[in-house]
Amino acid sequence: MGRLEIFGIEGIPQITRGDDLAGIIADAASRSAASSPDNALRDGDVLVVASKIVSKAEGRLEPIDPDDPVSHKPLVERESVRIIRRRGELIISETKHGFVCANAGIDMSNVEAGWALLLPDDPDRSARRLRDGLRARAGVEVAVIVSDTFGRAWRRGLTDVALGCAGIGAILDLRGTVDALGRELHVTEVAVVDELAGAADLAMGKAAGIPVAVVRGVDRSWLRDGSVRSEIVRRPDEDLFR
Amino acid sequence: MGRLEIFGIEGIPQITRGDDLAGIIADAASRSAASSPDNALRDGDVLVVASKIVSKAEGRLEPIDPDDPVSHKPLVERESVRIIRRRGELIISETKHGFVCANAGIDMSNVEAGWALLLPDDPDRSARRLRDGLRARAGVEVAVIVSDTFGRAWRRGLTDVALGCAGIGAILDLRGTVDALGRELHVTEVAVVDELAGAADLAMGKAAGIPVAVVRGVDRSWLRDGSVRSEIVRRPDEDLFR
Repeated sequence: MGRLEIFGIEGIPQITRGDDLAGIIADAASRSAASSPDNALRDGDVLVVASKIVSKAEGRLEPIDPDDPVSHKPLVERESVRIIRRRGELIISETKHGFVCANAGIDMSNVEAGWALLLPDDPDRSARRLRDGLRARAGVEVAVIVSDTFGRAWRRGLTDVALGCAGIGAILDLRGTVDALGRELHVTEVAVVDELAGAADLAMGKAAGIPVAVVRGVDRSWLRDGSVRSEIVRRPDEDLFR
Repeated sequence: MGRLEIFGIEGIPQITRGDDLAGIIADAASRSAASSPDNALRDGDVLVVASKIVSKAEGRLEPIDPDDPVSHKPLVERESVRIIRRRGELIISETKHGFVCANAGIDMSNVEAGWALLLPDDPDRSARRLRDGLRARAGVEVAVIVSDTFGRAWRRGLTDVALGCAGIGAILDLRGTVDALGRELHVTEVAVVDELAGAADLAMGKAAGIPVAVVRGVDRSWLRDGSVRSEIVRRPDEDLFR
């Protein structure tokens, strides 16, 4: 296994509807590379992009009443296909994408007052567009992961996970691989895009406003067509907890 | 935010009961540094150590019938305080530590036939001992995370998470921090030890038999006394899914 490097791309401005996000990321990386050449994007890099800026560029904003703390509730219900749990103002639901998260992933932080930000409509497609855009704008063949911050069952604290991906398999399938003693591995399906999303978060810094990070050095064999929706989202019939 | 680097420590032999794991890790890092000086352990490094080798060094092995595919079942029940779900041969349970995972974390891969490997008795304590041992053996002040590979509710694939930690806070608490627009962040508690465990897994390689990885460059402010048990494990009364 090689050495991995993770670094944030600084200098990305506030994003608004219609922005050319791939161009903005390519420009920021290029400016950063002017002083630190290692920051130039390279073939094989994995770019992890916070879903927040993807949603903003895609115009996934809905007006809410800034003085009403529960005015986003009807949006949460609209964006959900199933309510999993309620406790007080917290709603855990399954979104139409199949993600299980708080408030259907709707976010009011880092958004202008009076607006709520929805998750991207199709995060795998968003990732593919960014990947294509970065190829066109920066001439690099990168993988893209669109990430967000979710809670988990049974464990406190939030971690970043992948909502969409392109140019990298969501799951690394080790079936048929043997362990150091020659026996077949029990751990067969590793959710590498989720591990990459969490790793990138360590370099992004939620408060620092760095919404894109690069993970460099991943095994080239992981770089293939991938999809969070088809590989990571469990079908309801195979999920013990829905 | 700085740049993170992640690399595995190669050359760690098969571990058996009573082995001085801190000494073995320090020796392997030192041998590796002879050819690659950057691989020498440094103050502030976070060492992520697979719970498997911790359990082996601590002698957490129990005999099972190698010809009986369910002979570990009584062990699973003994190590659990509560069965959460059963499906076929799969048991999801809560361990006495408060972890929710398959088969109480009991593992038969990478273990000699006829033996089952239990989770460490107190992974926070295991991490503290390794941290103290590495200070004594290698003269470095490192943080230690003991990690394992767990499944999740709602998402396919497994990721590495922290079972124990020392010298690093399990949760990064951002309460009171403001976003780029001056509003208080909604995401307030980031489970950085879980993100670090997953990040390290990307450089460990389950099949490659590299059970220790170093994450270098984490923010020094994260390095404090920490505990997975007291910070990450949810109390049953605050868990919506137990």
